[in-house]
Amino acid sequence: MSEFGCGCNNKSIGEQKISTFAACGQGKFHPAGDDVRVADAKIDFVYPEVLFPSKRIYSIVGANKIREMVFYHHTLLRASAVGSLFPKDEEMFKIGTEKTAEFFIEALGGGEVYTPKHGHPALRMRHFAFTIDENARVIWLMMYKKTLKDVNFPKELIEEFWNWIEPLSIRMINRRTTAEPPQRYHFSYIKSEFGL
Amino acid sequence: MSEFGCGCNNKSIGEQKISTFAACGQGKFHPAGDDVRVADAKIDFVYPEVLFPSKRIYSIVGANKIREMVFYHHTLLRASAVGSLFPKDEEMFKIGTEKTAEFFIEALGGGEVYTPKHGHPALRMRHFAFTIDENARVIWLMMYKKTLKDVNFPKELIEEFWNWIEPLSIRMINRRTTAEPPQRYHFSYIKSEFGL
Repeated sequence: MSEFGCGCNNKSIGEQKISTFAACGQGKFHPAGDDVRVADAKIDFVYPEVLFPSKRIYSIVGANKIREMVFYHHTLLRASAVGSLFPKDEEMFKIGTEKTAEFFIEALGGGEVYTPKHGHPALRMRHFAFTIDENARVIWLMMYKKTLKDVNFPKELIEEFWNWIEPLSIRMINRRTTAEPPQRYHFSYIKSEFGL
Repeated sequence: MSEFGCGCNNKSIGEQKISTFAACGQGKFHPAGDDVRVADAKIDFVYPEVLFPSKRIYSIVGANKIREMVFYHHTLLRASAVGSLFPKDEEMFKIGTEKTAEFFIEALGGGEVYTPKHGHPALRMRHFAFTIDENARVIWLMMYKKTLKDVNFPKELIEEFWNWIEPLSIRMINRRTTAEPPQRYHFSYIKSEFGL
């Protein structure tokens, strides 16, 4: 019964309630009545917690494999529906991709190869310059699934890596196109594709 | 101490905590350690509650004044930095603006002049087609402030109207460009401009 088509929890002043836009279907539209009416505070959705990986991944695959993985992933993305987010110029593409590779190397425990040059990763903030909707995030994630296969990422490390990048990717979304929360793609959703 | 530059609440698995991206400054970046580490679930920000007006406004100003107000507002917006969101074609502009006017008339208690033709307003949903960032919302709101002045909206009704459209406008934001929550412009912020 909300004017937003996204809340059925209107109630009188004094109570406190927070729901999400997707929490309930559209009821009947209620125009102005005799009194001022309060429509609940709302959140869009909850960004799920992120499982940040241990040093195990780096200790097994090393910097070169991580760099190979990131370059392969960006090459796939460049040819995808979100390709316009990447530089057309080859040199700029290499510079940007190397920066991303350095982030992954440092984040995974390979030493300070990113922050001394670029500062805190602040990933969500750095991505504000690019319009990233729910679909762009799915493309990014599915291209990582393909990458992990194609670069023969060690199977025993995929779960730990995926549990990081899957929820992390949701945090880069800065353009909403639906009231539904971003879809989760838990490891259980992809593991059979790796024979796991 | 988060990898997102926007959370200092990482903690061990098992606890439950939700913070916002803007809740704390950037600490030091912490790369992978010996164990998997949990970064908290987060929300972006809370859309504040909306005070939906009573029939008092409609009963005093009537449909013609509301239509005049909406057309004036859209004409200002069309000439503003968000003008590209409105049709260039004059006839399409009039049709779209009349639709908005009908929404306002019905929402304010002037009878079913919108929903029989267009269905539930579902305002956030209908605005997904347009990229609306925090700044576009401020422009929309400030053009309403100017409109209320320029169309001589009855002073005694401005607070009730503003308390609706100000928080409502936040719900149309679908493109984030900062970790900060959208700025509030409470009635107390504008009332002196109306001699109130």
